[in-house]
Amino acid sequence: MQSNALKRLLVIGMVILWNVLCPVWAQRTTSYTLVIHGGAGTITRANMSAEMERAYHQSLQRALDLGEKMLAGGLPALEVVEKVVRLLEDDSLFNAGKGAVLTNAGEHELDAAIMDGKNLGAGSVAGVKTIKNPISAARAVMEKTEHVMLSGSGAEAFARQIGLEMVPNSYFSTESRRRGLKRALEEEKKNTPNAPQPAAGISSVRVDWKYGTVGAVALDQQGNLAAATSTGGMTNKRYGRIGDAPLIGAGTYADSLVAVSCTGWGEFFIRMVMAKSLADRVRFGNQSLVKAGDELIQIALPALGGDGGLIAVDRNGEPIMPFCTEGMYRGYVRKEAGSDKVKRVVAIYKD
Amino acid sequence: MQSNALKRLLVIGMVILWNVLCPVWAQRTTSYTLVIHGGAGTITRANMSAEMERAYHQSLQRALDLGEKMLAGGLPALEVVEKVVRLLEDDSLFNAGKGAVLTNAGEHELDAAIMDGKNLGAGSVAGVKTIKNPISAARAVMEKTEHVMLSGSGAEAFARQIGLEMVPNSYFSTESRRRGLKRALEEEKKNTPNAPQPAAGISSVRVDWKYGTVGAVALDQQGNLAAATSTGGMTNKRYGRIGDAPLIGAGTYADSLVAVSCTGWGEFFIRMVMAKSLADRVRFGNQSLVKAGDELIQIALPALGGDGGLIAVDRNGEPIMPFCTEGMYRGYVRKEAGSDKVKRVVAIYKD
Repeated sequence: MQSNALKRLLVIGMVILWNVLCPVWAQRTTSYTLVIHGGAGTITRANMSAEMERAYHQSLQRALDLGEKMLAGGLPALEVVEKVVRLLEDDSLFNAGKGAVLTNAGEHELDAAIMDGKNLGAGSVAGVKTIKNPISAARAVMEKTEHVMLSGSGAEAFARQIGLEMVPNSYFSTESRRRGLKRALEEEKKNTPNAPQPAAGISSVRVDWKYGTVGAVALDQQGNLAAATSTGGMTNKRYGRIGDAPLIGAGTYADSLVAVSCTGWGEFFIRMVMAKSLADRVRFGNQSLVKAGDELIQIALPALGGDGGLIAVDRNGEPIMPFCTEGMYRGYVRKEAGSDKVKRVVAIYKD
Repeated sequence: MQSNALKRLLVIGMVILWNVLCPVWAQRTTSYTLVIHGGAGTITRANMSAEMERAYHQSLQRALDLGEKMLAGGLPALEVVEKVVRLLEDDSLFNAGKGAVLTNAGEHELDAAIMDGKNLGAGSVAGVKTIKNPISAARAVMEKTEHVMLSGSGAEAFARQIGLEMVPNSYFSTESRRRGLKRALEEEKKNTPNAPQPAAGISSVRVDWKYGTVGAVALDQQGNLAAATSTGGMTNKRYGRIGDAPLIGAGTYADSLVAVSCTGWGEFFIRMVMAKSLADRVRFGNQSLVKAGDELIQIALPALGGDGGLIAVDRNGEPIMPFCTEGMYRGYVRKEAGSDKVKRVVAIYKD
C-alpha cells in the first residue's frame, strides 16, 4: 500500500513537472518571424499629419498582432501571410483592396500574388476588378488549379465559380483616391496640353509618387517560409499595365531559404527580377540576407534609375526591410529560439 | 620622278594589302551566336511524317538564315531576336502568331516578351488577340513606354495607337489548331462527363501535349545579349491564364552574361523563375552554362513535376538547348573568333 501510494505520488509529480516544463521548453525553442509593409515612397514627416501617422501605426500594429497570434499558435506561414495581407487589403489606408488607387479610366484594377516556400507553390491574379480580396484569389489559383497566374475577367469568373466574395468595383473607392486621380489627370494635362492621347500614359507615371502596395513574409514554427503581395498598382495607370506585385520572382517570391515581398516602381523590380535576385544571392552568392538586400535596394536599383523597397525573412528568422525612398510603412515581430521575448518594430520614415 | 612613282606604288600596295587583310582579320575575330526553338513536347519520329519533318527543318533553317545574315552584318542582338521571332510568328507551323492554338472560347490569346541584356530593358504583352506580331508589340512596350508589361485590350489599344499591324483574331487560325481544340474539348468531355463547368479548366491541360512556343537568343558582334519569346499558350486554356513566356525572369531573360528563352509547361517555369535561375547560377553560383542548364532542366524541373526545355547563350557565345521532353524544335548558328567557319545545327528529336 505504502509503495503504491509512493508510486502514485511519483507519477502525479512527473505529470505536474511535465505540464510546467513543456510549455516553458516549447516557448524557449520556438521561433518565428513576420515582416510586413504597406508601401514605400515619398513618405516624409513634412507631408504627414500626426493623426495620419497614428492611423498608419495602428494599422501596422493590428496586422502584426494578427500575424503574431497565428504564428505563436503554430499556424503555417502561408496561412499567416494570406490573412495578414487580407487585413491590409480591407484597410482603406493602403493601396490594395479597399483604398486602391484609380486607373486612368477611373476604375480599380487589382493584382496579387502568394508563394509557399515549402514546395514552390505559387498563385497570382492580375487586373481583377470585383474580387474583394485578391490575395485569397491568388491562393485559390495556387491550391485549386494547375495554373499559377490568371488575369482579368477570366480570373474573376474563376473566383465567382469557387465562391469567393465579389464586390462592385466602387467598393474599393475612397475619397482620397478619387482626389489622387483628379490631381494626376490635371498634372498630366498641364504637362502635355496638346496631347489628348498621351503616348502610353508615360507622362503621369510619377504624379502620385507613393507606392501603396502591401505585403507580408513569414517564417513559421515548422521552419517554412511564405510571401504575399497585393496592390492597386499606379494611379492613372492604363493600357492594362501589369506591375511587379503579381509576378512570381519580381515582386513576390519564397523558397526554402528566403521569402520576399517588394514595393516600389514596379517596372524596375520586373527588369531586375528583384525577389528572385535576392533569394539567389543568398542561395548561390553566399551573401547574407542583409548584404544582398542592401546591394540590390541601395545600389543596383538606384543605379538602374528606380526606387522602392522590400521586406524579406530568411530561414533563420532574420528580417530585413531595406528601401531607398523617403519612407516605407513597415514592421516586424520576431521570436527567437532560446528567448521568451518577442521583438516588435513598427516604422514609417528613414530615420 | 622615279622616287615619286615608287612612293605611289608603295601607297597603292598598302591600300590593296589593307583591303585584303582587314576583312580577313575582321572575319577571324568576329564572333556571334543565334539559338532558336520552336517548342518542346511529345515530338517523336512515330508521330511525325517525313513531309512534316522536312517542313519543320526548312522553317528552322530559314530562321537561322535570317539571323545569321543579320549577325554577320553586325546588327544588334535585340534586333536579331525580334526579327527571327517575327518570322517564326508568321510561320503557321509554330504555336505563336499565325498558327497559335485556340483557347477554350475558340479564340487566340497571344503572349510575348523581349529583353535586352545590354541595359536590362524589357517589354512584354499578355493576352493580346489582334496584334499581328506580338513580339514587336513587346519591343514597342520596352522602347516607347515606361512600362514593361501591358495586357489585354489595353495592350491592343497601345499597339493600334503606335501604328503596329492589327489583324482580325481569325487571322491566327489554322485548320490543324481548330482540330486540336475539338480534340481537347472531346477529351475533356469524356474525362469529366458530368462537369459542364470543369473547375478551373484543369482536366484538359495535358491534352495537346506539345508546347509550340517560339524563341530566340543571340550574342552579337558587340558582345551584347538579347532574348525573345512568343506563344499562343496552351490549347483550351481559359480564365485568362498567363504562362511563363511573357514573364520576365520566368520564360524570357537576358543580362550581360546570359540570354534565355524557355518552352514547356509554363506553370513550372514560373514557379522556378527558370530563366533568371539559369542566369543567377552562372553569375553567382559559378556554374558553367551547360551544367546550370542541365541541372535545372534535367533534374530540378522533373523533380517538381514539370517538363520542357530552354535555349540559352552566354557572353562567350556558348549555346545550350537542354530539354526533358521527347523532342524540341531547335537549332543554332555559331561563329567563333579565330575561325572562318560558322557551325550550324538543326534538330528535332532527342537522339
